[in-house]
Amino acid sequence: MPERPPFVSFLSDYGQLDEFVGVCHSVMLDVAPQLRIIDITHEIPPFDVRAGALALVRAVQYLPDGVVLAVVDPGVATDRRCIAVEVDGGFLVGPDNGLLAPAVAMTGGAVRVVALDNPEYQLAAPGPTFAGRDIMAPAAAHLAGGVPIGALGTEADPAGLTPGLVPLPQERDDGTLSGEVLWVDRFGNCQLNIAPEQLAERGAGPGAFVGVAIGGEERRARWVTAFADAKPSELILLVDAYGMCSLAFDRRSAASELKLRSGQAVRIVALTEDRS
Amino acid sequence: MPERPPFVSFLSDYGQLDEFVGVCHSVMLDVAPQLRIIDITHEIPPFDVRAGALALVRAVQYLPDGVVLAVVDPGVATDRRCIAVEVDGGFLVGPDNGLLAPAVAMTGGAVRVVALDNPEYQLAAPGPTFAGRDIMAPAAAHLAGGVPIGALGTEADPAGLTPGLVPLPQERDDGTLSGEVLWVDRFGNCQLNIAPEQLAERGAGPGAFVGVAIGGEERRARWVTAFADAKPSELILLVDAYGMCSLAFDRRSAASELKLRSGQAVRIVALTEDRS
Amino acid sequence: MPERPPFVSFLSDYGQLDEFVGVCHSVMLDVAPQLRIIDITHEIPPFDVRAGALALVRAVQYLPDGVVLAVVDPGVATDRRCIAVEVDGGFLVGPDNGLLAPAVAMTGGAVRVVALDNPEYQLAAPGPTFAGRDIMAPAAAHLAGGVPIGALGTEADPAGLTPGLVPLPQERDDGTLSGEVLWVDRFGNCQLNIAPEQLAERGAGPGAFVGVAIGGEERRARWVTAFADAKPSELILLVDAYGMCSLAFDRRSAASELKLRSGQAVRIVALTEDRS
Repeated sequence: MPERPPFVSFLSDYGQLDEFVGVCHSVMLDVAPQLRIIDITHEIPPFDVRAGALALVRAVQYLPDGVVLAVVDPGVATDRRCIAVEVDGGFLVGPDNGLLAPAVAMTGGAVRVVALDNPEYQLAAPGPTFAGRDIMAPAAAHLAGGVPIGALGTEADPAGLTPGLVPLPQERDDGTLSGEVLWVDRFGNCQLNIAPEQLAERGAGPGAFVGVAIGGEERRARWVTAFADAKPSELILLVDAYGMCSLAFDRRSAASELKLRSGQAVRIVALTEDRS
Repeated sequence: MPERPPFVSFLSDYGQLDEFVGVCHSVMLDVAPQLRIIDITHEIPPFDVRAGALALVRAVQYLPDGVVLAVVDPGVATDRRCIAVEVDGGFLVGPDNGLLAPAVAMTGGAVRVVALDNPEYQLAAPGPTFAGRDIMAPAAAHLAGGVPIGALGTEADPAGLTPGLVPLPQERDDGTLSGEVLWVDRFGNCQLNIAPEQLAERGAGPGAFVGVAIGGEERRARWVTAFADAKPSELILLVDAYGMCSLAFDRRSAASELKLRSGQAVRIVALTEDRS
Repeated sequence: MPERPPFVSFLSDYGQLDEFVGVCHSVMLDVAPQLRIIDITHEIPPFDVRAGALALVRAVQYLPDGVVLAVVDPGVATDRRCIAVEVDGGFLVGPDNGLLAPAVAMTGGAVRVVALDNPEYQLAAPGPTFAGRDIMAPAAAHLAGGVPIGALGTEADPAGLTPGLVPLPQERDDGTLSGEVLWVDRFGNCQLNIAPEQLAERGAGPGAFVGVAIGGEERRARWVTAFADAKPSELILLVDAYGMCSLAFDRRSAASELKLRSGQAVRIVALTEDRS
């Protein structure tokens, strides 16, 4: 039986239009030719550290043991650090700007942190604006290839990692939950930062209606288990594939219908009786 | 000489914006680390089973022996089945909604069909809406890794597969062919469901003109062999890389110029003399 | 230690919407199952040979030794040749339309050129419009798999390669440099065909201001080293990751702000004193 290859799982805001992703692949494969690279996604909106951190948290439990390389780096070429973080099952490499922190927490916390300041494991660069290519991709490949994390630079205090901000919903006196849209996916489904347990505590459950207040407008959504359970034009709430509440329509974009985008406030109330 | 790795060829409507594709890759590589995954495309329009089936049929003859994983699944979490189909040269895995059927036919028909209902080969899921990740990707990887198809679930009747609908052109009494646009590609070329033999039977051939009726409007197209044979602004018809008739312009989008989209009706008539 | 796999680095204007890229992968892996394919980018604008050539030049120094497959081919199915070019470190395969020439020059020039006219190393095709799939991808895979370049077709004169046109900036009598935008990246940064040395010769350097004339309008830009050095709404000039001068804003698109696109003329003057 052949040996298991080393894996790097790669997420960024580099997009597909340019050669950024391909060049980072090349740099990594030049360091470690047996490496297998998984592209998580490269379409994080430009500079959107929060969106990158949330995508990484959704994905991280499914990634194979190995190295995660994540680059959403608006502070490139400033004094923000590039770091490698050792966690249970592998390493995460990225800028220290909150992008990695939620995934680090999800995997049990940082065992060890190193600032990537050893130039021996970097590419010489004609300019400083592509640290993914010159600093972080080489570090990820070297880690995957077996270089000890300590060789990559100066040890740092795990407690000093820049925290990531994952917004928690607020309980209000009137019994409603003030949450927000965490994520709008390709299909326009809107994941909220509200877990079904929080609705269940308020008496809602599958089949029930919940009230949904967005901006000044109130609507109601039926809690169902499949998109296809929705009647035409019916707003539904369902537990999505990550165990969170999502607002959706069947085969239509809830984001378009409700004019919702990531970060927008949504207030939810469990309706104990049908107020239609 | 190293052993040939197992292959999974993967098509979906998951898009590139989210981490869906990367997570499915991860799930498969966790099951079978030596697996090689070919991304056919993930930009099938959301929920468009027909477009997915047609892309799969265009690609399937070029795919290496192994497993095809195809997911365009508007009925996710309903009682539509997820299936694995054994064919000559390998297996196809996907929802039983017509997506696989034309490719199954293309590869000689189903030898064996199994409904993917054995939970031992599925991921435990926090919610039911991502069957690609939780049911179909694991099945594809297990098949590629050598698990017998019968282990994945309950045997089903190959004759009970949901058929795919590939539209055939209609011959009309006036000698014209009523067809439709099968596919608009990135370049705006419009593939018709009309084979060149059908035009040849009516007396047309390379160099000839054909009449093209779209909506109420009639135009004519010259049958050429290369895009660059077209004069500026000249509508051409050529035999495309799949052996079908396509409407095109040189370096311009026929879809934009003619306001054509997939599924739209196009009537073709062979012009025995130049009626310009 | 396992053997280093053969690599093909692949660039095209095929886009992600269709199955073109996946089919080319399949064709190559069918020829050489151990092949590793790096996708440089496939989002070169349709038919834009210049943009493809420039992306290839930016990437080529980072690609692993092996084969480069590049396809931007508006002349497909005409008498333009498909070629393989031997260079130091490997081979480049593509249409002979200027796409490969700058990368060939970058890697030290062509050692040997072969026209891909041996049908034994091509796929039989139902139509002639997908030479990437039928001629060039098979050639790339065969080269990566060890087939000698001479087997692929007729030897050709390296001096007869169609040249690529990389525009050089012009010095004007008034001491200004007339350049143009080479590349607008995903983030809207605008790379110019002007090297920092050319500005340094005119007395500019980091911290200085330079005058930027676009169309009839003049602006000034501050030469900084990091995007984050820019004040809000401040136009900056920095040395990008390829060693060229780029116009940028911090976390905003210079292309949108300045209405710039690739190919557009930009005149630069070093300001010896601050004229604000």
